[in-house]
Amino acid sequence: MTIKPYVRKAQFHETDQMGIIHHANYIKWFEEARVDFMEQIHYGYDRATEAGIDFAVLSASCEYKSMTRFNDTVAVECRITSMEPSRMSVLYRVLDVATGELRATGETRHCFYSRIRKRPVALKKELPELYDLFKSLAGPNETESK
Amino acid sequence: MTIKPYVRKAQFHETDQMGIIHHANYIKWFEEARVDFMEQIHYGYDRATEAGIDFAVLSASCEYKSMTRFNDTVAVECRITSMEPSRMSVLYRVLDVATGELRATGETRHCFYSRIRKRPVALKKELPELYDLFKSLAGPNETESK
Amino acid sequence: MTIKPYVRKAQFHETDQMGIIHHANYIKWFEEARVDFMEQIHYGYDRATEAGIDFAVLSASCEYKSMTRFNDTVAVECRITSMEPSRMSVLYRVLDVATGELRATGETRHCFYSRIRKRPVALKKELPELYDLFKSLAGPNETESK
Amino acid sequence: MTIKPYVRKAQFHETDQMGIIHHANYIKWFEEARVDFMEQIHYGYDRATEAGIDFAVLSASCEYKSMTRFNDTVAVECRITSMEPSRMSVLYRVLDVATGELRATGETRHCFYSRIRKRPVALKKELPELYDLFKSLAGPNETESK
Repeated sequence: MTIKPYVRKAQFHETDQMGIIHHANYIKWFEEARVDFMEQIHYGYDRATEAGIDFAVLSASCEYKSMTRFNDTVAVECRITSMEPSRMSVLYRVLDVATGELRATGETRHCFYSRIRKRPVALKKELPELYDLFKSLAGPNETESK
Repeated sequence: MTIKPYVRKAQFHETDQMGIIHHANYIKWFEEARVDFMEQIHYGYDRATEAGIDFAVLSASCEYKSMTRFNDTVAVECRITSMEPSRMSVLYRVLDVATGELRATGETRHCFYSRIRKRPVALKKELPELYDLFKSLAGPNETESK
Repeated sequence: MTIKPYVRKAQFHETDQMGIIHHANYIKWFEEARVDFMEQIHYGYDRATEAGIDFAVLSASCEYKSMTRFNDTVAVECRITSMEPSRMSVLYRVLDVATGELRATGETRHCFYSRIRKRPVALKKELPELYDLFKSLAGPNETESK
Repeated sequence: MTIKPYVRKAQFHETDQMGIIHHANYIKWFEEARVDFMEQIHYGYDRATEAGIDFAVLSASCEYKSMTRFNDTVAVECRITSMEPSRMSVLYRVLDVATGELRATGETRHCFYSRIRKRPVALKKELPELYDLFKSLAGPNETESK
């Protein structure tokens, strides 16, 4: 299965007075890319939430490599680098579509939270089908791809 | 009971590339002022939501009179102008604290939504105490104050 | 020239604790639709800003007709209803793509601000080509379409 | 000089459908705390930007320790941990004011960007007074405080 990068435009309301996209927005773009990723693997995020499982965020980080400006089109690549029964890590690369220039890299780590039991749970146990799907897509955290 | 305006700083992340506060943020400031208003009348917003009642927004509008910039301190006045059993209207004025200059005026209209019954309900019936409180604070929609 | 509605997904980060898209986001969607509109008419928003002209927002309003939820795809129609030398009005309709249901209607009014002269200017004089283009696309503000 | 933590309320518009504050907002809170920090040391952020120096963000990260909910009051502590001529690092701790519980820790790294020369510059050279002030406040990056 080939996952296509998530493509979107940088919006005017995402700019700040420095004339660039405000850095907090990249964290939102990572989330949008995750949601798009799940749609591409035919297991929509909403299907998990409807089953009572939320993806809690344990950490989020972003390294800003160059500036994105209003109306630029960016591609956000996202890749699972670690899949454990109750945790996962996702790496991101944000590229400018027109020039191919790297805009940012980032990582988020997640656990799985049951809305019904109100506590973290093992995805492997709760949604084994999704766990296996994620596991099959998890690749090595190669240095060069970061 | 005298309601004090809600005071807050305009933040860097609220600016856009025009060097001013992006217009969508004023709608959020109105909400912050409503929440602050309810705290001042000793009936916190969360007390209503805990009782299963959400304040749904029927409409929101804002007229921008002058520009707010990063680090400006603004005062948001909010005033109930109409209180019916199942609807209410709130007017806002945003003023620059340093100069007193009018930055914006606005209005939101609300109905009350029961999370349990999953439909709009009459506040007068669901939370009569809060309805009476709102009703006692509702003032005329004078033209000069808009 | 036929303008296609602006289509986008409602994002997770746009939801609030009521489980719906927070109302302030619609104001951002209107802006995204305006930018998309200008791209469709082959006069990109950035072309105006590069010429030193910003679109200042005089007012923004939204009427919420039904709730948008995470992962819903919405289409935002936008239409110029009034075009004067130094002002314009734009109407919006937000529709759920899957059901066709109306989610919201709205309006924004704009003037044109010269970053160089630091004051409002007449678009007709500053960017006559864009003014004529807007003027040719301006349609009546029919009651039924609101 | 004792720096007081930056105190603010978690807002309704910052919640998401999980019923908690969306994780991207913490990155904004860090920025608000930095701005407040600069005000406390009597060298306002706007004074730097007026001198043509922006604080570019090289990286931002956040570890989420527990959930913040609407209407919670949080205190954001911020502390310079490294100050070099052309770079600085800032650590953050977000605490619930009512319980003292740790909500999150984070870090941002910055360089200094000249709007006039359109390139990164050394703060030590551009604004030596501010550099010395930061330097005098920079403390060790103790493990226990993270």
